[in-house]
Amino acid sequence: MTYRFPEGTDLEKMSKIVSIGQSAGTWSPKFENRKDRLSGHLAEVVELHPGLKGGGLAVIDYPVSNCPDSTGALLTAIMGKYSMAIPMKVVDLTLPPKYGVAPVFGIGGIRRSLGVFDRPLLMGIFKPSLGLTASEHGDIFREAAFAGIDLMKDDEILPDIPGCTAIDRLAAVRVVVEELWRVQRRRVLYAVNLSGRADQVLEKARTLVSEGANALLLNVIAYGYPILEALAADPLVNVPIFCHPALSGVFTGPSDYGFSARVVLGTLMAHAGGDAVLFPTRFGNFPVLPEEESSLVDILQKSSVFPVPSGGVNPGSVLPLGQTYGKDMIINAGTAIMDHPGGVSAGVHSFLDAFSEAGWKMESVSPF
Amino acid sequence: MTYRFPEGTDLEKMSKIVSIGQSAGTWSPKFENRKDRLSGHLAEVVELHPGLKGGGLAVIDYPVSNCPDSTGALLTAIMGKYSMAIPMKVVDLTLPPKYGVAPVFGIGGIRRSLGVFDRPLLMGIFKPSLGLTASEHGDIFREAAFAGIDLMKDDEILPDIPGCTAIDRLAAVRVVVEELWRVQRRRVLYAVNLSGRADQVLEKARTLVSEGANALLLNVIAYGYPILEALAADPLVNVPIFCHPALSGVFTGPSDYGFSARVVLGTLMAHAGGDAVLFPTRFGNFPVLPEEESSLVDILQKSSVFPVPSGGVNPGSVLPLGQTYGKDMIINAGTAIMDHPGGVSAGVHSFLDAFSEAGWKMESVSPF
Repeated sequence: MTYRFPEGTDLEKMSKIVSIGQSAGTWSPKFENRKDRLSGHLAEVVELHPGLKGGGLAVIDYPVSNCPDSTGALLTAIMGKYSMAIPMKVVDLTLPPKYGVAPVFGIGGIRRSLGVFDRPLLMGIFKPSLGLTASEHGDIFREAAFAGIDLMKDDEILPDIPGCTAIDRLAAVRVVVEELWRVQRRRVLYAVNLSGRADQVLEKARTLVSEGANALLLNVIAYGYPILEALAADPLVNVPIFCHPALSGVFTGPSDYGFSARVVLGTLMAHAGGDAVLFPTRFGNFPVLPEEESSLVDILQKSSVFPVPSGGVNPGSVLPLGQTYGKDMIINAGTAIMDHPGGVSAGVHSFLDAFSEAGWKMESVSPF
Repeated sequence: MTYRFPEGTDLEKMSKIVSIGQSAGTWSPKFENRKDRLSGHLAEVVELHPGLKGGGLAVIDYPVSNCPDSTGALLTAIMGKYSMAIPMKVVDLTLPPKYGVAPVFGIGGIRRSLGVFDRPLLMGIFKPSLGLTASEHGDIFREAAFAGIDLMKDDEILPDIPGCTAIDRLAAVRVVVEELWRVQRRRVLYAVNLSGRADQVLEKARTLVSEGANALLLNVIAYGYPILEALAADPLVNVPIFCHPALSGVFTGPSDYGFSARVVLGTLMAHAGGDAVLFPTRFGNFPVLPEEESSLVDILQKSSVFPVPSGGVNPGSVLPLGQTYGKDMIINAGTAIMDHPGGVSAGVHSFLDAFSEAGWKMESVSPF
């Protein structure tokens, strides 16, 4: 993995401190009798790329045996106590291919569950985020689904709340999913938002799936990667998991601390079992550096995880998104669909028209 | 809660955007028919304290009904997608007293389990962090325990690894705990580190407790508060939970993003059920602002959560720590005990002597 140390810091010294302090912890001659055992756990500085004004990049290799049980231990290893002591940023992370928990569905699985293979997918978000009844969720879902949307998701800030519980929302949506199947032989996924204590999240996921949920949404950064890992590893949770990046800006902000987005929303999500990852896109209204975004999308696509560009996405975003990332993405729009002056159905059509105009062949007949 | 917006930003505009965007999500006249229901979910800007050069502090009240199922939803609500869009920092957070999961043990419970009431407690850390066998853990524990230490903990970077599993470490330590009880009628707590996927963490906690663990350690930031909540709420996990701050520097770094330490390590830990919280102290070797640290300790003590000043703590730290924070703290030392030239026992005595010199009355006889 690669750390970036800021200007004015001593690259060689800092990288040595981190490599020892975050692996064997301490190193002194009195440990000579345990040398073999200890040295197998020592991280190693393998490359230094000094900056012109101090600092620079340091590539440090950590033994996988230091954190075999994945993301929680990994984060503690690479950015534990030194996050409180030294300005440094994890700008790149390479893990062994089989490290952690692999996505069960990913791009291929989500495409198969929808029967759509040759174009990007379109996802909508229920709005307003809070204040709808479960039955209003059903109404909005009906309008969007019959207009041709591929997926709908809860807003990330809608938890399981009295008056609009996750199970009630699912029940209202499921009626429409079944109706759509009877009428059009099409499927639409609904990623229902998980919330609560860890034990409740895991239990709710099983309950929702047994009640017919065909997708789940998790605010991975706010709830912790280990919950995503547990969901992905649970054979009873056999639906795609959509990963929301809420709170991730704290990790990826433009400071000398934290992580690059490619690590937080790319590598770590892919190795924790995420099937699709939402991220803020520069083709909407978020201030993201082109190379940072492209590199994230590249990591996700190469891991067979669906990239989901989000945030102020509108029909005008479709062409540049397609030209930049190709067909393997899920275009995710909230207000551009929900607040369309012609209504939800018109909002969906405005995107599907943009898909056609961008050259994507739209199915007229269901593949089922 | 209070956000700080940096210099050069429009305080009034930004706080309005955040209060709407992070609560009802959108607001438009077409929602007039749902106004009552929606407005109950709208967050409200209640105070603005402009800075001299723009930005400043904004106090925003969120309805508790937006995130009743606690920390994961709360973090998503107060610092969700806007973390990726706007530089802002959560500098203060006030929650209803009964919000979330209360600590089951806290200061009183940990004191009762040790029978020590009138002085700070002393905690040691197994070193080196990685590379010891389980039986070496037992040896170190014996030396520290019989020398008079109150608690021992795993290093945060030691997960459950082959060759030194959590259950083997516990078995080696437990023999000594029982021996110490027979010989001295004293108890010593051992906070064994939890790791793995969320389901594994919860299951391991139950297993370890049923095998005799008398305390647990969790890297709360790396694993997520919802796992802490689940542990604290589990009646089968009836031992104190020690919360390690690894990774928290990413949240609390000196930037315009993230959170103050009082929120991340204070308010949120207390409301997620932590019994004791480790934090880097300026009386050791961490660069922490005095007012930031004091405010964190104050929140923990008022919540009956044990503050655990850590990081380069040595016997010379004892007097100023005691003068600043009083008796209700756990002084936590790693290398100052483990690398003491006279050995572990001498390391423990160097701290206990400092306790006496600072005026704390040391028990000569066990209270049991």
